[in-house]
Order: sequence, then structure tokens, then C-alpha cells
Amino acid sequence: MAEPLTDDQQRAWRTFIETSWALHTHLEDDLRAQTGLSMNDYHVMVVLSEAPGRRLRMGELAGRLVFSPSRITYQINSMVKRGLVLKQPCPEDGRGQEAVLTDEGMTALESAAPLHLVTVRDRFIDRLEPDELEVIARVFDKVRKA
Amino acid sequence: MAEPLTDDQQRAWRTFIETSWALHTHLEDDLRAQTGLSMNDYHVMVVLSEAPGRRLRMGELAGRLVFSPSRITYQINSMVKRGLVLKQPCPEDGRGQEAVLTDEGMTALESAAPLHLVTVRDRFIDRLEPDELEVIARVFDKVRKA
Repeated sequence: MAEPLTDDQQRAWRTFIETSWALHTHLEDDLRAQTGLSMNDYHVMVVLSEAPGRRLRMGELAGRLVFSPSRITYQINSMVKRGLVLKQPCPEDGRGQEAVLTDEGMTALESAAPLHLVTVRDRFIDRLEPDELEVIARVFDKVRKA
Repeated sequence: MAEPLTDDQQRAWRTFIETSWALHTHLEDDLRAQTGLSMNDYHVMVVLSEAPGRRLRMGELAGRLVFSPSRITYQINSMVKRGLVLKQPCPEDGRGQEAVLTDEGMTALESAAPLHLVTVRDRFIDRLEPDELEVIARVFDKVRKA
């Protein structure tokens, strides 16, 4: 049985989890209202836009986004229907599949990015001091490596 | 047009948003596998369990959870079907409705809490130093007040 949280731990955890949950909801709502895209759409497009040839194997993309195989398939199929992404056989082995960001997807990302940036600044970045941002980067880097 | 993020801001933001998104997914997956509850179920039960008489007006509950009216209605109706929550008219004005945590809901919360605690410690709390936790509490308190 895990030891109960101390009062300080409890306070930090509750504040973090409730606020980050609400922040995700706000980011999603703002993005959808402004662009019609979900945060999952946006994250997929950002990750693909940074990959060589704007393409990644489905498994690698799933790993980067911490998506299960069924969830990444559902997500990519939805984006294929909207013309944001293509599915193509992997050039190396011909068995696996890659997701490729289309020109239309890249254009959608470029239109959405400045709008999303306003939300990110308003709701998070511009509220923090540089030393707080440094701790945030360090803490979530440790948590990611879990 | 918002000013682009500096490299430090960009790094902090990407690390935070990607990791907290993944953390939410892990918390949800672990909780569902262990208890059948979603994180939304869990948050509703925690908030109600701490309210006087274990009851809150739907609007107040929605505000606490940053849920839209339609989302809180959907969430509570789903919990009513599973016996975790009851909907009752507000004693004061008879028009509004309150969500009330049932004994069954309280028991479900008490069974889930120690399992959820293990995940929370493993994936977050036990990775951080006390001074880092202090910064987390301060930062997310500021962000919440947005």
C-alpha cells in the first residue's frame, strides 16, 4: 500500500492535475472554435511537420504521442478523410505504413499555429517567470522519462 | 499577432504539454484497467465527497471541473446509470438540480483511491524534489486563476 500524500504533496498534486486538465480543455475548445482542429490533430501535424520528408511510421508516431495502436489508427483515418494526412506503404519494407503530412495539412498547421500561440501565451507562458519555466522544463522532462 | 516563443519557452511548453497529455492518458488507462472508472468519474466523486452532504448543484460542479453544461449533464447521467451518483432537486429553490454521491459511489471512490495513489506517486510525485513540488503548486495556482 502506497504511503498517503503529505499535505504539501496533496496540494501540489491537486492543483496541478485539476489545472492541467482544465488547461487541456481550454486549449482544445479554443483550437476547435478557431480552426476546427482537435489538439490530437494539431499534435500529429506538429510531429509530422518536423519529421524528415514530413512522414513517420505509424508505430513511431503512436509512440511519440503515447497513443495505443487502435487510437492512432482511428486518429489517422479521421485525418485522411479530411485530406490532412496520407497513408503510404513504408519505402523500406513495404509491409508497415507511414503517415505523411499533405500540403493541405501543412497549410492547415501554418494557419492554426499563430492562433494556438495566442492561447498558449495567454493561458500559460506569459503567466510564468523565467525561473519557473526552467523548473517546468526540468520537472516534465523527468516525468516524461518515466 | 503574438510574439513567437523563445527557444527556452518553446522547450518548456513542448515538454510540459506533451508530457502532461501523456500523463493524463496513463492515469486514465491505469484507473480504467484497475477500477473501470474514468478520470472524469474519479474527479466528480472526489469533488462531491468533499462537499457538505456530498452534494453540489450541477452548475457549481461543472464550474469546479471546467465542464460545459452539456458535458456535465452527459457525465452525471452516465454515473447515475451506474449507481455512483443521484440527481435530486435543490432543496432551496426546487428548480435547479444537485448531484449527490451515493453510498455505492463513496465505496467505489474508497476502493479506487489507494490504487490511483500508486500511479500518482510512481508517475509524478515521487520523481520530484520538495522545492520542485513547491514551484508546481505555485505555477498551477497562477494558471488556474487565469
